[in-house]
Amino acid sequence: MIVVMKKGATQEQVEHMIERVEELGLKAHPIIGTERTVIAAIGEKRDEHRASLESGPGVAEVVPILAPYKVASREVKPEPTVVRAGSLSVGNTHLGVIAGPCAVENEEQLVLTAKAVKAAGATAIRGGAFKPRTSPYSFQGLKEAGLKILAAAREETGLAVVTEVLSEADVELVARYADVMQIGARNMQNYRLLEAVGYAGKPVLLKRGASATMDELLLAAEYVLNAGNPNVMLCERGIRTFESHTRYTLSLSAVPYLHDRTHLPIVVDPSHGTGHTNLVTRMAAASVAAGADGLIVEVHPNPEKALSDGYQTLDFAQFEELMALCRRVAEAVGKRIE
Amino acid sequence: MIVVMKKGATQEQVEHMIERVEELGLKAHPIIGTERTVIAAIGEKRDEHRASLESGPGVAEVVPILAPYKVASREVKPEPTVVRAGSLSVGNTHLGVIAGPCAVENEEQLVLTAKAVKAAGATAIRGGAFKPRTSPYSFQGLKEAGLKILAAAREETGLAVVTEVLSEADVELVARYADVMQIGARNMQNYRLLEAVGYAGKPVLLKRGASATMDELLLAAEYVLNAGNPNVMLCERGIRTFESHTRYTLSLSAVPYLHDRTHLPIVVDPSHGTGHTNLVTRMAAASVAAGADGLIVEVHPNPEKALSDGYQTLDFAQFEELMALCRRVAEAVGKRIE
Amino acid sequence: MIVVMKKGATQEQVEHMIERVEELGLKAHPIIGTERTVIAAIGEKRDEHRASLESGPGVAEVVPILAPYKVASREVKPEPTVVRAGSLSVGNTHLGVIAGPCAVENEEQLVLTAKAVKAAGATAIRGGAFKPRTSPYSFQGLKEAGLKILAAAREETGLAVVTEVLSEADVELVARYADVMQIGARNMQNYRLLEAVGYAGKPVLLKRGASATMDELLLAAEYVLNAGNPNVMLCERGIRTFESHTRYTLSLSAVPYLHDRTHLPIVVDPSHGTGHTNLVTRMAAASVAAGADGLIVEVHPNPEKALSDGYQTLDFAQFEELMALCRRVAEAVGKRIE
Amino acid sequence: MIVVMKKGATQEQVEHMIERVEELGLKAHPIIGTERTVIAAIGEKRDEHRASLESGPGVAEVVPILAPYKVASREVKPEPTVVRAGSLSVGNTHLGVIAGPCAVENEEQLVLTAKAVKAAGATAIRGGAFKPRTSPYSFQGLKEAGLKILAAAREETGLAVVTEVLSEADVELVARYADVMQIGARNMQNYRLLEAVGYAGKPVLLKRGASATMDELLLAAEYVLNAGNPNVMLCERGIRTFESHTRYTLSLSAVPYLHDRTHLPIVVDPSHGTGHTNLVTRMAAASVAAGADGLIVEVHPNPEKALSDGYQTLDFAQFEELMALCRRVAEAVGKRIE
Repeated sequence: MIVVMKKGATQEQVEHMIERVEELGLKAHPIIGTERTVIAAIGEKRDEHRASLESGPGVAEVVPILAPYKVASREVKPEPTVVRAGSLSVGNTHLGVIAGPCAVENEEQLVLTAKAVKAAGATAIRGGAFKPRTSPYSFQGLKEAGLKILAAAREETGLAVVTEVLSEADVELVARYADVMQIGARNMQNYRLLEAVGYAGKPVLLKRGASATMDELLLAAEYVLNAGNPNVMLCERGIRTFESHTRYTLSLSAVPYLHDRTHLPIVVDPSHGTGHTNLVTRMAAASVAAGADGLIVEVHPNPEKALSDGYQTLDFAQFEELMALCRRVAEAVGKRIE
Repeated sequence: MIVVMKKGATQEQVEHMIERVEELGLKAHPIIGTERTVIAAIGEKRDEHRASLESGPGVAEVVPILAPYKVASREVKPEPTVVRAGSLSVGNTHLGVIAGPCAVENEEQLVLTAKAVKAAGATAIRGGAFKPRTSPYSFQGLKEAGLKILAAAREETGLAVVTEVLSEADVELVARYADVMQIGARNMQNYRLLEAVGYAGKPVLLKRGASATMDELLLAAEYVLNAGNPNVMLCERGIRTFESHTRYTLSLSAVPYLHDRTHLPIVVDPSHGTGHTNLVTRMAAASVAAGADGLIVEVHPNPEKALSDGYQTLDFAQFEELMALCRRVAEAVGKRIE
Repeated sequence: MIVVMKKGATQEQVEHMIERVEELGLKAHPIIGTERTVIAAIGEKRDEHRASLESGPGVAEVVPILAPYKVASREVKPEPTVVRAGSLSVGNTHLGVIAGPCAVENEEQLVLTAKAVKAAGATAIRGGAFKPRTSPYSFQGLKEAGLKILAAAREETGLAVVTEVLSEADVELVARYADVMQIGARNMQNYRLLEAVGYAGKPVLLKRGASATMDELLLAAEYVLNAGNPNVMLCERGIRTFESHTRYTLSLSAVPYLHDRTHLPIVVDPSHGTGHTNLVTRMAAASVAAGADGLIVEVHPNPEKALSDGYQTLDFAQFEELMALCRRVAEAVGKRIE
Repeated sequence: MIVVMKKGATQEQVEHMIERVEELGLKAHPIIGTERTVIAAIGEKRDEHRASLESGPGVAEVVPILAPYKVASREVKPEPTVVRAGSLSVGNTHLGVIAGPCAVENEEQLVLTAKAVKAAGATAIRGGAFKPRTSPYSFQGLKEAGLKILAAAREETGLAVVTEVLSEADVELVARYADVMQIGARNMQNYRLLEAVGYAGKPVLLKRGASATMDELLLAAEYVLNAGNPNVMLCERGIRTFESHTRYTLSLSAVPYLHDRTHLPIVVDPSHGTGHTNLVTRMAAASVAAGADGLIVEVHPNPEKALSDGYQTLDFAQFEELMALCRRVAEAVGKRIE
């Protein structure tokens, strides 16, 4: 990292900071400029020490140089990771499509949806059994009964099951039924939960927090990878910005940006990312063109009567259209849905 | 609009507000709820009066119902507008591609670029003669000499010229040379300039301000349309968010969102929208998949030596790749570059 | 809430939506405007149904009218809540001051700090025993050993102990040592944890998530209140915005805004809210002037050697200055530190 | 600045970049780290060249070190600037208070307001004669007639006149009547207008753009200073963030942050910064506690009937309260309103 001294910093202050840098086990290279002195601190990744250096006497600013994540980095593993879970393959040339309702409501709803999305070409079913709801007065999910319904839908259709886990206390239970454990955006920095799904071993779909930078997303993935679980899919699902005409701002630049920096596959959620049914199909196609390795899309037999998220949910006919468009775009960019 | 009264609002306050609403020429429909009273104010678009109602006694909030733009609205003109300027057609099934350097530096640079982008399939040339620079110490453009070079490049290649105008004082001069007058993001709410390009009559490419909502963009377009100029292209070029790994956050949801609300064509700028050369091609493809009617892309013979924006500029080979990918995606979504 | 129909919505669609509204147990008041029809849906708070209505045929938009929180609302309890925990009183005219290091590092560090901040006038000690860290490679806290050190500092000084709990699994343990359980910004929407601290019964300091709206903060508080725990302090600690010169953007308008809507006391954290030592004192004073009921400030015997957050931490002399300034401002606005 | 090379950058690429840095007239200091090479580029401020270096072969990133503004910098002029314009003094220990209606509506309204705010202690009158309005259908101001009314109010009360100029074409006209020329947030990067007010010579109140960083605000000031006008007041008036419960997010940390970096005085606008009458007084007090050198506040004889901005405007009694509170806080922090 680079320690930038203030314009009037004294020789003594510069020497003090050189000493501090070396105390941290880094090599200090002072550079005397025309207007101020900077000290390059070279060594293993130690950007966490940035904190203490910045409060040193005469210091204007400390500028980090190295990315703080390691195992997720493409510098460490250049070839793309392909995550596989039953019928679902995500990464490299494989475009996975996960579709299903926001919440599991009952067996009929879910099995009907699973059959319809499979017929349209989806490669996994999604559905929430544990629902994180902004208000304590909203529907909180069917819990274990919901997991059993998901397993029944897998039985019926062969589709892999993707479902969210909200609490470390539920990890073992959810892992018994799910093929992929989803970590929701609100829990992206719930570190205990990240470690727990890391140890549980099932593939993980990690959603980006609504105000998380891409570096923070990679560091959250690092918690899972670090616990010995290499099968992590990152998911862009929209960030919070001043623009309120859409529910979130889907930041598709995240797809090529992350592909440059990490070998992990990138999934996009155009349903939460836009919050409006009529924007989902176009943004799914745009995600594929941006290079996404997977899509996760909300589909319900009758969105108008869905217990949650109806305003961003497709019905079966709309989902078929989405698949037709995405298949054409996938071909144009060299990806396959299978 | 809807005037929401506070929980404890008195009968007298409600009556006062009904009177106020009617003074504004609107019809008041009071609705007595279980917890509070709301007054629906019905009539012509008058959301500008929201300001004064909100400070009324006992009022909790005023909720606007109608979109504030008129001429730009798809409700007024359902069929999509196609903007044509020489070699450039933008809108409906026509995908226009505007390419060229950030700034006009000299004739050789510009003519070379114009020939290269034309060969790759671009349908217009861009280049700044007047440059808005964050710092007064940066290169400010060649001004009229730059405009002459642009005209020479048009002469040579037949490509339409798109160039920015910064000031009402320059509108006449720029209109003499340009086929399309560009209003930059920093000037999206420079209302005098909007009116001036409205009266000048040449087609206008209006860039979204970095913190402008989509409604504000449509209202800015309204200033140009209102001055009698129907040929306005809107341009998404990234908004400012907390994410600093990219220069701006390119909000591609703006494309289908705006298409729902306006008949005006939507152009995307993946160069400014990302700020990194290696993200431009993918985001151009994603823009096309999202339904964009045009692209505007920075291209330079040698980006490393460009006087501005080199970090987000493609060289000729990179631009050819972009065009090849975008053509395939355009075909997949039913658009044609021509 | 208000269901706004599209301009061209048919009579049939309007009737369908009236039916849907009444199925939800609400009373429907259709209002025929000059350009479009709106349906006011009146009844108990049911804004969660907004989701399903928005996907109805012919619907343009659904506009919520009522705030979604209940128990936290000042409409329900007009007089301000005062939260008391040992030496700490927060609310109404009582200004509480919580000070101490980011992380508990060792007994000497903590007891020294506790004595110093008490001497300067602080009314509680803070210190993290469980640390949520963005990177898995950063210091994670002393855990139970840290809690014991906090208890020792309380023994020594009489100051109440405020400390963070990261996981439902630790709630019982932390409750045994802490006087106030802190929920960090990253966990503001970890609903299981909110319920767990709700049931544990100790007063709670609930930090606003970096991208949480004020309504979402109040709904998170609602999870704790709903579990039977009335002693909740809300904490503004900065939101994430495009401005990166400060770590977060401390939104002091939240103080008077929340005071209007809730009876719960509001604490401000100028340390995380700015991320720079040299901004903390001024922003603490500004918080008090804005009407804050409490402050939480990072203080360390030697910030330059702190294991975390050194760049935003005050030393003892700086904290004394802060207290002197805040005392004068508190007096000017009618608050007392005691 | 620091050029960070990619991990696998070749010796040849490093040498190429050293050459490039030296071509720009900077001195290159390459530093070979354990994982990658960085090149420190030392010399006069040349961060504008960052653009071209970033597109060099093998370059990962270019990190700027020096602030890009010069004349505004406190490093150049350590003592605070005091701007004086008739009855108004802003800077150092002088707290100026500018108050008046959003728009000049008629002479009676303005003179009445001027007398009332003077009686309460304001030191200048504000009022818009040229109004920048988001919608072309809103009231656009009385133009020269409005300026004459402002001059009449000065005549009557002795208060200095602060009013906005929207266009270079009006600079001469406005300068004839105004004591302080205000540049609105939408025009912060209208560089021609900045230069024009720079040459006009009257003191300037420069409002921060809604999405401008603090560095960009200082660079905009640099355009005015550079044209030979040293009397610039910076104005924080709220930035655009995801929080929509307030009109903007008033970022008071800007006050101490800017005071650290510039000698120019800082004014705060709590009216636009919050957008709600009932938040203005508290945020005015908080601004003073944060160290603001001035306040600009919207006041109207009858806000409910104001032609614009009524929802954020104080009536005379509310403004008296604001002044009483601010006077007490000013005293607590060592400032004087006079």
